[in-house]
Formats: sequence, structure tokens, C-alpha cells
Amino acid sequence: MTNAPKIGIIGGGQLAQFLAIAAQQLGLHVHALHSDEKDPVACAVHRSLIGDMKAFSSLMAFAKGVDVLTLENEFIDGYYLSQLQENGIRLYPSAETMVLVQDKFIQKECFSKSFLPVMPFCQVNTESQLGDVAQKWGYPFVLKARRNGYDGKGNVTVGGPEDHRTAWEKLNGDQNPLLAEQFCSYVKELAVMVTRSIQGDTVVYPVVESIQEHHVCHIVKAPADISDQLQQQVCDIALRAVHAVQGVGTMGVEFFLTDSGQVVINEIAPRVHNTGHYTLEACCCSQFENHIRAILGWPLGDPSLVTPAAVMVNLLGTHRASGVVSGVSQALAVSGVHLHLYGKTTCTAGRKMGHLTVLGKSVEDAQKRAMMAAQFIQFGG
Amino acid sequence: MTNAPKIGIIGGGQLAQFLAIAAQQLGLHVHALHSDEKDPVACAVHRSLIGDMKAFSSLMAFAKGVDVLTLENEFIDGYYLSQLQENGIRLYPSAETMVLVQDKFIQKECFSKSFLPVMPFCQVNTESQLGDVAQKWGYPFVLKARRNGYDGKGNVTVGGPEDHRTAWEKLNGDQNPLLAEQFCSYVKELAVMVTRSIQGDTVVYPVVESIQEHHVCHIVKAPADISDQLQQQVCDIALRAVHAVQGVGTMGVEFFLTDSGQVVINEIAPRVHNTGHYTLEACCCSQFENHIRAILGWPLGDPSLVTPAAVMVNLLGTHRASGVVSGVSQALAVSGVHLHLYGKTTCTAGRKMGHLTVLGKSVEDAQKRAMMAAQFIQFGG
Repeated sequence: MTNAPKIGIIGGGQLAQFLAIAAQQLGLHVHALHSDEKDPVACAVHRSLIGDMKAFSSLMAFAKGVDVLTLENEFIDGYYLSQLQENGIRLYPSAETMVLVQDKFIQKECFSKSFLPVMPFCQVNTESQLGDVAQKWGYPFVLKARRNGYDGKGNVTVGGPEDHRTAWEKLNGDQNPLLAEQFCSYVKELAVMVTRSIQGDTVVYPVVESIQEHHVCHIVKAPADISDQLQQQVCDIALRAVHAVQGVGTMGVEFFLTDSGQVVINEIAPRVHNTGHYTLEACCCSQFENHIRAILGWPLGDPSLVTPAAVMVNLLGTHRASGVVSGVSQALAVSGVHLHLYGKTTCTAGRKMGHLTVLGKSVEDAQKRAMMAAQFIQFGG
Repeated sequence: MTNAPKIGIIGGGQLAQFLAIAAQQLGLHVHALHSDEKDPVACAVHRSLIGDMKAFSSLMAFAKGVDVLTLENEFIDGYYLSQLQENGIRLYPSAETMVLVQDKFIQKECFSKSFLPVMPFCQVNTESQLGDVAQKWGYPFVLKARRNGYDGKGNVTVGGPEDHRTAWEKLNGDQNPLLAEQFCSYVKELAVMVTRSIQGDTVVYPVVESIQEHHVCHIVKAPADISDQLQQQVCDIALRAVHAVQGVGTMGVEFFLTDSGQVVINEIAPRVHNTGHYTLEACCCSQFENHIRAILGWPLGDPSLVTPAAVMVNLLGTHRASGVVSGVSQALAVSGVHLHLYGKTTCTAGRKMGHLTVLGKSVEDAQKRAMMAAQFIQFGG
């Protein structure tokens, strides 16, 4: 199709790869700007531009070759993104959304002003302010980098006055703006994917439970084992959170369910998200396809589960090594396993090397088989 | 993964593209040998080699760069394929299978010797033999090119002695070896995908009904509306047919259901097949993923339907034009549509430009929505 819109994806990882596959299956041309020719996205696009995603010149050069630009992560500077828009580039999510989201303090202010539930939070500009924070909320509290955190990187739990120094230094508080947040004692982490199109149409995926290990998503259970009423409440808040940041495309909203039964927003990811990988096989229309539909203004697809339950398990690196994988044959011998290996050439502790999803009659059934299959997969020999 | 097997696909079309996506999602490296940089496969591989798929030199050069070679179509010369094998290339399906399949006379002889049901057939070496054929079976009968036919190309129905000349000339009988087949009066066309691994493990997909238009597959209904007993019989014959040709990988077996309730094999396609596209969304493990698993000796995935029914509709070109598509937004507005556009840059009458699949509670339900969506899609403006 000579007139097929060209989609430009900034980013090279597995999220970009899944977006690219969804786009190419809809007949679109797909370009990606990424940093290494071995990145997962490279085998799923019509054209790769290897370049610096954080340099305005490469962003602009890349953007000029496509019709619609989209993002795999929240780390591209909001000012650069607004400059792209001023140069007539169509970008979804918009620079305005990214500015509201990529600084966690601004994000929380935005939610707070929209009367959405978040834990109490405040800016912290000097180490001595940590004492004031402790006086207000007691210990423990959480100290966070306002920008560029992910998978627990950029978060420290402060357990007492003796932790002030190390926390401040670990997050390099003299250089990086930080925020403090009241500690949330939670019983479950929940997540919801929402897709909102440029026309403002929205679909909300089922509420899932996400189980973390060392601050990295390990297991996602769909649907979450919560009451219908709570599910409705979580979906409602997720939708309002996406509206609050004027999001377009697919976004992941992460929640804590507190021990007193309240839900608070942990954060929003302004992009397709690991907790939505199960949608590839378990939902009628995946988070990736709906993102592409949304940014082109096409009707959104049905987000509902095609099966009573699904469980996704991340396949994480355990140590620094090559990306050589073993156990594939054993894992595939488990009935109903959908295996995704990202083809990364190197592996580190906690690095997302792949995932697998199992559909089932119940979460228990799916989880049993998913865990059985996942235990076989090892990286780095 | 530095040690991931490299899969080499000979072919550039949508079947190659779907195979490539299935392989890359399993973490494999994928190379393709194809003829045009705009071919559908080009955006789904780690490396494209643009070359002549019918020249031994390019086949050999391509084969040397991969660990396992596979085929998108049945048109690569069997002798060349056997030469590749003699040079130590791992090829699935094997040259032996391709030799048994790619000449329709040899294929039918193979089935016949295995006591599998086929229509009576014979070689035809001269135009005058058409009279002998008519005397044996009466009119109409079918005249076929022994090689390179597909989508009705290479087939002529001979209705009376006045057709002998035109049929012979149309198929260029003086140059091309032909066969004649007794005409089959059928009520339905059925098809079954079978996957057989290098270890000899097999899975059989549900029996589907395929509805042709101008000799091109138009609609596939899964499952076919036939008795359990007939379904069992068709699956059994399909499995025996794959064994008869020593097939490895996914293969499509096409049947006629005659007006007297018998099933006869029409032909076998030694590769993934259009009548198996519905397996992408409707089956637990698609024909494409199972092909990749099979040729690597990995356990095969579950071929069963994840939904009571599915209907696939081919999106065909209607005239010679560009591949520009319209109606995508309207088609996607129909609930539950899985749209696949192959991104071909030009279109001709009957060319496969895309397909769509709808899952449903019944074939009627799925078909209604699939037809509604398909009518919106137009190519060439």
C-alpha cells in the first residue's frame, strides 16, 4: 500500500517490537529509532534508524520520515517532544502528556488536582528536609527520583534517620530532583491498561494483579481476584487518570490495594506496558493493536478476555551473561504455553529477556502451567 | 540469543511473513530469500536476501547462512532441493517430500499407492489422448498442469470434444506435462492442516470448510458443518496423506466431499496454507508456530480451537491497480475483527491482499460479522 501511514516508534525494546508487529499486520509501514542494530525491534520494521534517542537532531531527522510518531518509553525529554510538535510532527501521546507524566512529582500533582487517590507526597530539595518528612508521616517513607525511574530503580525506602544519608546519596539528591511519598502498606498490586484514541474513545482492559519480585514485575494474573465493586472502582479511576494526563494511545495504570481496602494510584505508564502482555493472546484485541488503532483514529478493538483467565510470567535474567537460552523445548512441552523470547544478546540480573502466557479455565490452572513452563527457561547457560 | 538457530525461509509472501513472525517471537533469527525488497516478508526478518529463488546459486548461498531451511511454496525445483541436502543443508520439508508433492501426477500416484482416496487420474502426453480420457470417464473431465498450478491456474475443465484444442493450448500441453482427472461433483470443499515434527509427532487441526470464488479461496469456516464421524475420517486421511509424502512441518490437505457423501483428496500443500490462517487467532497454537516448532524438533502446540467457531475471509484484489487500501476504519468498527493487510504495493484481480478473521459463538455469528467487515475493504481506490 503506497499510501499506508508510516508509524515511527522511538525505542528498540520488546514493547517497540510488539507495537511494530501489530502495525505491520494492519498493513502499515513501520520505522523505529533505536540505539543498537541488535535491538528486539530491528526484525519487525520496514526501516531502522540507529541513533541517539535523547538527541533532538536524531529525533527530528527520524520524525520527518514518518506520518505519526509514538513512544516506547517515558524517558524522551518533554521539551524536545514539544519542539517536535511545534515543527508540525504528529506525536501520540503528546508532549503535554509526557510532561505531565515523566516527572513523578508533576504526575502526582496532576492526579491530586483531579481528586484521584494517591499517597501523600512532597518535593524534597535538601537532605535535611528528610527529617521534616519523617516528622510528618513517620518511618518508613519512600524517597524517589522524580525522573527516569523504572523497575524499582530510582526508589529507596527510608526506614529511619540512619538511612537519610545513604538514600540521599543513592539517588544522588544533590543532582537529581527527588520527591518523598508516604509509605503504602499494600496487600496487592493491581494494574489496568486503558486505550484512548485521538477522538477520545476509550476501552478499559480487565483489572489484573501484578506480583513483583525485587521491584520487577514477575507474574500477572488476569483477572485480579477482587470484588466486582472494587474492579469497577479501579477501572473508573484508571480511566479518569488517563483523562487527567490527556493520554492518547494505550497506557498502564498501576495501583496499590491497601490493607484497609483502599486503592491508590502508584503511577501511570504513558505507553504499552508489561502488565498488559497477557492481552496478546488473552484479549480479543491486544494493547499493542489498540495503541496503533488509537493513534490513527481508528475504532478501538474489544479489550475483553477470550478465556476465563490468563497468567503471564516474565522470564528474567539472573546474572550478567550472554542471552543464550536453554529449556525452550521443555517449556513448550507444557500444554498451552505462549512463549515470547525477545532475542536479546546479553542478559543481566532482572533484565526482561522474554515472557510467557498461559490461558486457562481459572487463574490457578493457568498459573500452575505457566510456572511449570517458566522454570525451564534459563539464560546465559 | 547468540546461539539461537537461524531459520531460512525461501519465499517472500504473507505465508513467509507469518512464519517469520512466529519464529522471531520464539527468539529465533530469521532470514528470507525472496525476489523484491517490498515483499511482505521483508519487514519481519533479521536479514533479507533479494535473489532468484529458482537459481541454485542463490539457494545455496542463502542456505549456507542459516541452520534450518524451510519453504513458503512448492515451486522450488526438487532436484535443486536434493542438491542442497547433499551439501549438508537441513531442509524441512525434505527434497523427497517436495518431489512427491510438486508434480501432481506423482502426488496422486503416491496417495493411490497408500490406498488414500483420490479421483481416477492418468497421464496425458498428447492431445489425441484426450479422446481416450473422454471415452473412459465421459465429459466433463479436468485437465491439469502437473507442476506450478495454484488458485485454479493450471486447471481446465473439459466439457466436450470442442474444448480439447483450447484446453490443450491453454495449458501449453506440447511443452508442459499434463494429467487428466475424472470430474468430481462435490457439495463441499474441506481442508485440514496437519503438523508433523522431525521426531514424527503430529497434531491435526479441526476440519474446515473452504468456499472458493473463481478458484481462489474466499471464505474458511471453522469448524466445518459435518458429522463427527466424517470429521474423524477426514482427519485420519489427512494424517495418512502427510505420512505418505513423509511430510515435516505444517501441511494443508484439501478435500472434496462428493454428492454421494464420500471424501477424496484434492491435493496436499506441503506448507502452511491459506485455509489455516484462522489458526492465528482461533487456535491455541497457530499453524505457523507449529511449523517452526516442528522443523526444530520442539514439542508441538495444541491445535484446538479456543472459541466455538471462526470465519476467515480473504481480501482479494478486484483489478490491476496500486495496493492502496480503503475502508480500514469501517472494517475495524465491526466487533471482534482481526484484520491482516499484507502491505502489497500492487494489486491484480484475485490477488491475496489481506484477510480477516472473526471468532464467534457459532459459524453463523462469526460469518455475519466477517462478511460485514470484509465488504468495506477495497484496494486500488
